[in-house]
Amino acid sequence: MAKIQKPRRPKAETPRGFRDYAGAEVTERATMLKAITDVYHRYGFDPLETSAVETVEALGKFLPDLDRPNEGVFAWQDEDHGDQGAWMALRYDLTAPLARFYAQNHLSLPTPYRRYAVGPVWRNEKPGPGRFRQFYQCDADTVGSASPAADAEICMMLADALEAAGIARGDYLIRINNRKVLNGVMEVVGLLDPAAPEAGEAARGTVLRAIDKLDRLGETGVRALLGVGRKDESGDFTEGAGLGAEKAEIVMGFVTAERESATLTCARLRELVSTSTIGLEGVSELERIGALLEAAGYADRTRIDPSIVRGLGYYTGPVYEAELTFEITDEKGRKRQFGSVAGGGRYDDLVMRFTGQRVPGTGVSIGVDRLLAALQAKRGGAAEASGPVLVTVMEKDRLADYQAMTAELRAAGIRAEMFLGGGNMAKQLKYADKRGAPVAIIEGGDERAAGIVQLKDLALGARLAAEIETNEEWKAQPAQIEAPRDGLVEAVRAMLARGA
Amino acid sequence: MAKIQKPRRPKAETPRGFRDYAGAEVTERATMLKAITDVYHRYGFDPLETSAVETVEALGKFLPDLDRPNEGVFAWQDEDHGDQGAWMALRYDLTAPLARFYAQNHLSLPTPYRRYAVGPVWRNEKPGPGRFRQFYQCDADTVGSASPAADAEICMMLADALEAAGIARGDYLIRINNRKVLNGVMEVVGLLDPAAPEAGEAARGTVLRAIDKLDRLGETGVRALLGVGRKDESGDFTEGAGLGAEKAEIVMGFVTAERESATLTCARLRELVSTSTIGLEGVSELERIGALLEAAGYADRTRIDPSIVRGLGYYTGPVYEAELTFEITDEKGRKRQFGSVAGGGRYDDLVMRFTGQRVPGTGVSIGVDRLLAALQAKRGGAAEASGPVLVTVMEKDRLADYQAMTAELRAAGIRAEMFLGGGNMAKQLKYADKRGAPVAIIEGGDERAAGIVQLKDLALGARLAAEIETNEEWKAQPAQIEAPRDGLVEAVRAMLARGA
Repeated sequence: MAKIQKPRRPKAETPRGFRDYAGAEVTERATMLKAITDVYHRYGFDPLETSAVETVEALGKFLPDLDRPNEGVFAWQDEDHGDQGAWMALRYDLTAPLARFYAQNHLSLPTPYRRYAVGPVWRNEKPGPGRFRQFYQCDADTVGSASPAADAEICMMLADALEAAGIARGDYLIRINNRKVLNGVMEVVGLLDPAAPEAGEAARGTVLRAIDKLDRLGETGVRALLGVGRKDESGDFTEGAGLGAEKAEIVMGFVTAERESATLTCARLRELVSTSTIGLEGVSELERIGALLEAAGYADRTRIDPSIVRGLGYYTGPVYEAELTFEITDEKGRKRQFGSVAGGGRYDDLVMRFTGQRVPGTGVSIGVDRLLAALQAKRGGAAEASGPVLVTVMEKDRLADYQAMTAELRAAGIRAEMFLGGGNMAKQLKYADKRGAPVAIIEGGDERAAGIVQLKDLALGARLAAEIETNEEWKAQPAQIEAPRDGLVEAVRAMLARGA
Repeated sequence: MAKIQKPRRPKAETPRGFRDYAGAEVTERATMLKAITDVYHRYGFDPLETSAVETVEALGKFLPDLDRPNEGVFAWQDEDHGDQGAWMALRYDLTAPLARFYAQNHLSLPTPYRRYAVGPVWRNEKPGPGRFRQFYQCDADTVGSASPAADAEICMMLADALEAAGIARGDYLIRINNRKVLNGVMEVVGLLDPAAPEAGEAARGTVLRAIDKLDRLGETGVRALLGVGRKDESGDFTEGAGLGAEKAEIVMGFVTAERESATLTCARLRELVSTSTIGLEGVSELERIGALLEAAGYADRTRIDPSIVRGLGYYTGPVYEAELTFEITDEKGRKRQFGSVAGGGRYDDLVMRFTGQRVPGTGVSIGVDRLLAALQAKRGGAAEASGPVLVTVMEKDRLADYQAMTAELRAAGIRAEMFLGGGNMAKQLKYADKRGAPVAIIEGGDERAAGIVQLKDLALGARLAAEIETNEEWKAQPAQIEAPRDGLVEAVRAMLARGA
C-alpha cells in the first residue's frame, strides 16, 4: 500500500534578512517620521509616494554592491509588461524613482520641484546581524535647481529635522564635501583627464574607497591603500591605487584639509586643487554653502569635511552626511559612537538618463531605523506601549452589558477593550498584565445588584511591585476601588490620572 | 568601421498597473488612515507591520484568481535563503502575514491578540482601468477568540472607523452572513457531506460564484447558474452547478432569506438549514452577533444578509462586508452606487497551517483607495493642497537675506520657501501660481533701503480672478500691500488669515 505523505507544514518565520515591527515599534517610528516630515513640509516640500515596483531599466545600476546577482535588487520578469517580459524590481532607494517620476511629469511639475518621500526600500544583500533587506528611508530632494542655496537649504532642513526627531543640538554634526573637489584632486594626481573622464575610473574608485576608510584605518592605513596596498591583521592583502609618495601626499593633504572654519578649510582646498578648473568650481560651491549656513546660524552644526566620500556613484557635486556625535553604551557595555544617520548630495545627471537633458538635483536620505535606534539608545530603551483599559467578563451571558461599558469608555476617548478570551478572573488579570492594561473593570452579580463596579489599578500594582518600600502609598491609594456604575467613566479617568 | 550604438534611454514610466501618489493625494490618504487607526487603537488593537516579503510557502494559496502564473503573486527565487533557493513573494494581503506572525510569536503574544495593520499589498493580475497591482489595505483582526462577540466587535469598529473617515451614518451598511449557514444549505441540497468535506468542492464553488452574482444577474440569472447554466448577452455559456429545480429553490430561498430584522432573518434561515448541524450552528452565531449589535445600538447600520459570499477561500464562519449606499455621479455623468469598501470574516484555520493547532481569528480589511475615492466622489473632487509662502529673489547676491526671511516665517510655524530657480519676477510669480502659494514676498533694493517688504496676496488674486463681480472687495482688500521688514511674520499671518 502506498504511504500517504502528510503535506509539510510551512515554517512560521520572517524571511531571512527581513523583520516585523509590532506595537510601540510601529507608533514610535510613525511619531518620529511625522516630526521629520512636518519640518520638510514647513520648508515647502511636497509629499510623493511612488510605486514600490519599478522596471529594472528605470532603476539603473547605482548600487555600490555590484558583485551580487541582480545587481543587488530583488527582481523578476513580468509577463504582463508590454515588451515581452520586462524585468521588474523592488526599489532600492527613493532617489531613482524620483528621477523617473520627475522625467515622466516634468511638464506639469513646478521648477524647482521640492518633494519628500517616506517608505520601505529593498536590497538583495546577504543578510547579517543588524543588516536588513527591507528598511525605511525618509528623503527630501530639490530637483531643478543648480544653486548651492538648494544644497544649503537641504543641510539646514536636515539639522532642523534631526532636532525635531529628538536629537539635541550639539549631539549631531552635518559634514559637507564636494565631489568636484575630489575630482580636482584626482586631476592633480593624474587619475582624471577632463577630456577623457571615463579613463581611470577603477583607480579613482580605489582612491575613494581608501579615503572612506580613514575613520577605521587611520592615516597610515589610507596612505598604504593609496600606494602599493595594505595587508590587514588577518594577513589579507588589499591592492592599492599605486600612487607615488608625492601624489599620495596630495590626496592625504586633501583628506586632512579640515581647518577651524569653513572659510579656512576652503582656502586650504583652493591651494590643493589650484590647477584644476573643476576642483576650483567645487571649492567655490563649498564656500557659498558655508557662507549661507553661517548667515543662517547653522555654522555650529555644519562642517566642511574633505574626508566625506558617500558611496553612491551618482553624486556629482556637494555631498553631505549627518553624524551623531554622542556616545552610547551597547548591549555588551562597550561605549561606541553612533555614526552616520543620514546622507545625500547633488546628482545632476540622474534625470538625464531618461530625458537626455541635464536636470540638477540635490537631496538627503535619513536612515530611519538607524535614527530610531539612536534615539532609543540615548533614552536607554524602546518606548513602552500603554495598553487599553480591560473590561473583564464575570458572567458569560452578560456580554452585552460589558460591551456597553467598553463602548462608554471609548466614547469618552479612553482606549478600552472587553475580554474576548476564555478563562476565570485570574486568567483575565494575567491577560491584562500581558496587555499592559492600566485599569481592569470588574462587575459580578453582587456589584450589579448594588449598582457599582470594581476598578483595579494595575499600573499602581506594577509600580508597587517594583518599589516595595512605598507601602504607605499603597494604603493611601488602594489598588482596587469601588465606583457607582453610572460614574464609570469619571472613576476610570481619575485612576488613569493618578498613574500619569 | 563598426557603428557605435548609443545606449537606449530608459522609459520614464510608472510600471503598468502601478501608480504614484503626489501632494494632497498622499496627505489626504494619511489623514483618513490616521482617523481609522485611531478608532482601531481606541478599541484596544495594537499596530503591526510585517515585512512586505514572505516565503511563497508561508503565504499559501488563497487568492481567488488561481489561473494566473505564480498564483497571482509577484515571486522570485532567493539565492540567500537556507534551503537552496526558497521562493519569495510580495504579500498579496495583510491576513496571511498575520497568520505567519501569530504562529511565530504566539507564546509571547496575549490571547486574544488584537492587531491592526496598514500598508501596500501586491497582486500579479492583469492591470486594467482602475485595477492596480499595488494598493493599500487597512486591516484589523482578533486572533485567538472564537466568540461571536469578537465578530460583533469588528463590525462595530468598522462602522465607527467609516464614520471617523467621513462616511455619514446612513450612507453605509454592514452586511453580515455566515459560511456555516452556506455550508448548511450545501448539506441540505446534497453538495456537502460533513463526513467527507473535500468532495463536491468544485460544485460548491460554482454555487458560491452564482450567489455572488445576485446583484448583477438578478434571481433569474442566479437560478440558471444553479441549474444547467446560463448564456450571457454575448452568447457565451457559463456552465451551471447542475442542481435540480427543487434544490435550486432551496438555495434561492437562502439567498433571499433577508427579513426586516436580524431576528426574523435568523428564524427563516433556521427553517432552511433545519437538518444540518453546521448550518444551525451558523444561525446561532448570527443570532448572537445580531443581538450584540442591537444591544450596542448598531442595528441601524448592520444587517444579516444571506447573499453575501466574500471571495477568499479561507473564511470558515461569519463574513461581513461594508457597502456604501449613497449614489455618486461618475465622470460620464451617470449615477451609480459605490458598492463595497471593506470586507472580512472569520478564518479559524489560517494559523493551523503553521502550527497544526486550530486558532480562531476574525477580521476586516478596508479597501483604502476605494474608500478614499468614495470620499472624494461624495465631496465632488480631490482635496486641494495649499502651497508655501514664496519668498522671491530680486537680487541674486542677497540670498542670505531672503533665506533669513524664509527662516523667520518657518520659525513662526508658517510653511515657506525661497525661490531657488532662475528667472525674473514674472517667472517667479508664475512658479508661485503653479505651487499654489498663498502669498509672495518681494524685497528689492528700494524696499530694503526703506526697511519694508511687499506682500502679494496670491490667494486673493486667484479668488478675484474667479469672481469678477467682487471688484469692490478688491479695492477694500488690495492684493499687494507693504509691511515693515521687522513686521514680516505678523503681516503674512494677517494676509493668510483673511484668505482663510
